[in-house]
Amino acid sequence: MSPQEALEKIRRGTVEIIPEKELLEKLSSGKVLKIKAGFDPTAPDLHLGHAVLLRKLKHFQDLGHEINFLLGDFTAMIGDPTGKSETRKRLTKEEVLENSKTYQSQVFKILDKEKTKIVFNSEWCSPMRFEDVLVLSSKYNVARLLERDDFSKRYKAGNPISMIEFLYPLVQGYDSVAMESDVELGGTDQKFNLLVGRELQRDYGQKPQSVVTLPLLVGLDGERKMSKSLGNYIGFLESPLDMYGKIMSISDLLMWEYYRLLTDLPEEEILSKKSGVESGSYHPKEAKTDLARLIIHQFHPSSETESAIEEWQKIHNTKSRALPTDIETMDAGSFPEDPLYLLGTLAKLGFFKSVSEGRRLVQNGGLYLDEEKVSDEKFILERGREYIIRQGKKGKFLKLKT
Amino acid sequence: MSPQEALEKIRRGTVEIIPEKELLEKLSSGKVLKIKAGFDPTAPDLHLGHAVLLRKLKHFQDLGHEINFLLGDFTAMIGDPTGKSETRKRLTKEEVLENSKTYQSQVFKILDKEKTKIVFNSEWCSPMRFEDVLVLSSKYNVARLLERDDFSKRYKAGNPISMIEFLYPLVQGYDSVAMESDVELGGTDQKFNLLVGRELQRDYGQKPQSVVTLPLLVGLDGERKMSKSLGNYIGFLESPLDMYGKIMSISDLLMWEYYRLLTDLPEEEILSKKSGVESGSYHPKEAKTDLARLIIHQFHPSSETESAIEEWQKIHNTKSRALPTDIETMDAGSFPEDPLYLLGTLAKLGFFKSVSEGRRLVQNGGLYLDEEKVSDEKFILERGREYIIRQGKKGKFLKLKT
Repeated sequence: MSPQEALEKIRRGTVEIIPEKELLEKLSSGKVLKIKAGFDPTAPDLHLGHAVLLRKLKHFQDLGHEINFLLGDFTAMIGDPTGKSETRKRLTKEEVLENSKTYQSQVFKILDKEKTKIVFNSEWCSPMRFEDVLVLSSKYNVARLLERDDFSKRYKAGNPISMIEFLYPLVQGYDSVAMESDVELGGTDQKFNLLVGRELQRDYGQKPQSVVTLPLLVGLDGERKMSKSLGNYIGFLESPLDMYGKIMSISDLLMWEYYRLLTDLPEEEILSKKSGVESGSYHPKEAKTDLARLIIHQFHPSSETESAIEEWQKIHNTKSRALPTDIETMDAGSFPEDPLYLLGTLAKLGFFKSVSEGRRLVQNGGLYLDEEKVSDEKFILERGREYIIRQGKKGKFLKLKT
Repeated sequence: MSPQEALEKIRRGTVEIIPEKELLEKLSSGKVLKIKAGFDPTAPDLHLGHAVLLRKLKHFQDLGHEINFLLGDFTAMIGDPTGKSETRKRLTKEEVLENSKTYQSQVFKILDKEKTKIVFNSEWCSPMRFEDVLVLSSKYNVARLLERDDFSKRYKAGNPISMIEFLYPLVQGYDSVAMESDVELGGTDQKFNLLVGRELQRDYGQKPQSVVTLPLLVGLDGERKMSKSLGNYIGFLESPLDMYGKIMSISDLLMWEYYRLLTDLPEEEILSKKSGVESGSYHPKEAKTDLARLIIHQFHPSSETESAIEEWQKIHNTKSRALPTDIETMDAGSFPEDPLYLLGTLAKLGFFKSVSEGRRLVQNGGLYLDEEKVSDEKFILERGREYIIRQGKKGKFLKLKT
């Protein structure tokens, strides 16, 4: 593959390559490039939103470059010492290691394990002393940090920005210096931080990394970015049936975006499928099934994918709405709560993570009780009954005894 | 002395005590208070501007409290790693130690050596790790730092502020935490940083220090703050004759300020002297001589002070403008320069520190050649002559052979 072709493979689905010319030079150099991507070890459950980035790393890997999967454990172990931010939960060393294992079990569904280096930034950050931090901080200036979109908005709105938040981009940028990365990938929301790395490398006398930004994947709702807390996601660890059901639920418009970002189907073929759907020669449901196959294959053996598709057809393509054959049964008969709230019970059973996740599900019309949409967040279950619970239009089922 | 009387002794000549009620409580507690004052080891030549602060420390010392004379060696050893700021010269450990000796030889002219602790902030800053710095930085916020007058001006003017400059107030504030200081003293220009210390102590669960700010002493010119670079200063190490001459040169207005900030003469006596001068019963020259005595006694034995006054009277009080008896002679006969510039020659001989200092002297009308004011900065000396050089109206003399 020529460097130009390699560049084109990389470019597909990216938002920006800064600067493209420099990346082309690097790709032409014949050198094995160090590719950096940073991940937050506080949230080890991966979903298709992460796959966009991981798949792009895979492209670099397929081109023979070295992937450095960076876990920002140093900052995770510090978290938010003020305790004000819930998103910056402080992790112990043990939790970081455990999370990193969970991560690894997931990322290697996409990346080639043999060709991937897992690195932890505590390796170079922990030994740094106050003096080193001052030298590092002397290389960056305040006004530039205040240009970062979220900082700028908060500053203008009079909302506090802690100094530690101002140091975090420097930590992240310094990772690039310590790793001597040639290219760093990240979501568009990371662009500023990726550029800090580029600037710091220059200041430390290194050749600055090229920056590749990727779009934030839109979630199943077709509106907001895919995220666990919004419930609009497909997790790496979900069953083929759950994945298939969720993919079938997306809009036709979103389908093409997913084709582009979550499969390697060549652009011409995507366009030809699209015109097929537009001319009516190709049914959108078929197009979605093809997409689902391409996505699920990345996580499950194809035989399982095909069984899942059959199972799903059985449930949804018959008017009778037959229930799947293997619904799990859970018993809340022994729960002492009185009254027995639906959401509380399901949260307790782990059907969803928390009552507030359940509440969001109800608000989004995604929870069914005996095949009827639940609208009352405070719905109370009767004792001694058996209910069929369903999450999402084509989602998971549960037989609940009370 | 009652706590209220102690407070009044402290209050004299201060700008602010934040908060005064809290300081009064501390003074009433019977506890030996830890008094902190920070000094920059890059500039070890002290002048009367520093005496204002040192004398206030002495007041605390006389009240039985513990003076912690803090040398900010940690930050001095880092300086400005970008090399952009000339004022933040990077010092080696050896230079810091040497400067600290120079400092000590001067401060103990005012402070009681036995009751003063010299501390270096490298003691607690050097062992700090990146992690500790992040925890520290989490306790302070960006908007608050941008409120500091100089930062705010620079930010608004679009002039860069390095992140290291944003960390320095935190270092200084953390010193108070590490020292567990009860009171910190500083010039009004330090108020912001002193308050950072107060806030950080609170965050670290300590009783916050009280803050005492002192005015910046106006220099001999009666306009700008006393500083070495402006040449409007009286150094701790100057001779009684030089000190006396300089004090005699200040304006009548400034004299009262010096009485208040540089002597312990009770306020009523100052006011009575002032009304004496105003009513004509007390000659301003006599008032200045009395002031000079009170100041010079702090640095020299009183016998030397009296001889200096006599010497000065001899020079200045006779119409003949007799030259002092012991003028030093220096020979520039062997200097190869051609032409032989007056300012360059005097700088080379060490009569003043640099040509630019000489230039300022000429601009301020403070340099005399054969008792005539020099106005030409490029004045060229004739070879083979002898000149009488005089600095300032009543300043030092030099016989210069060319």
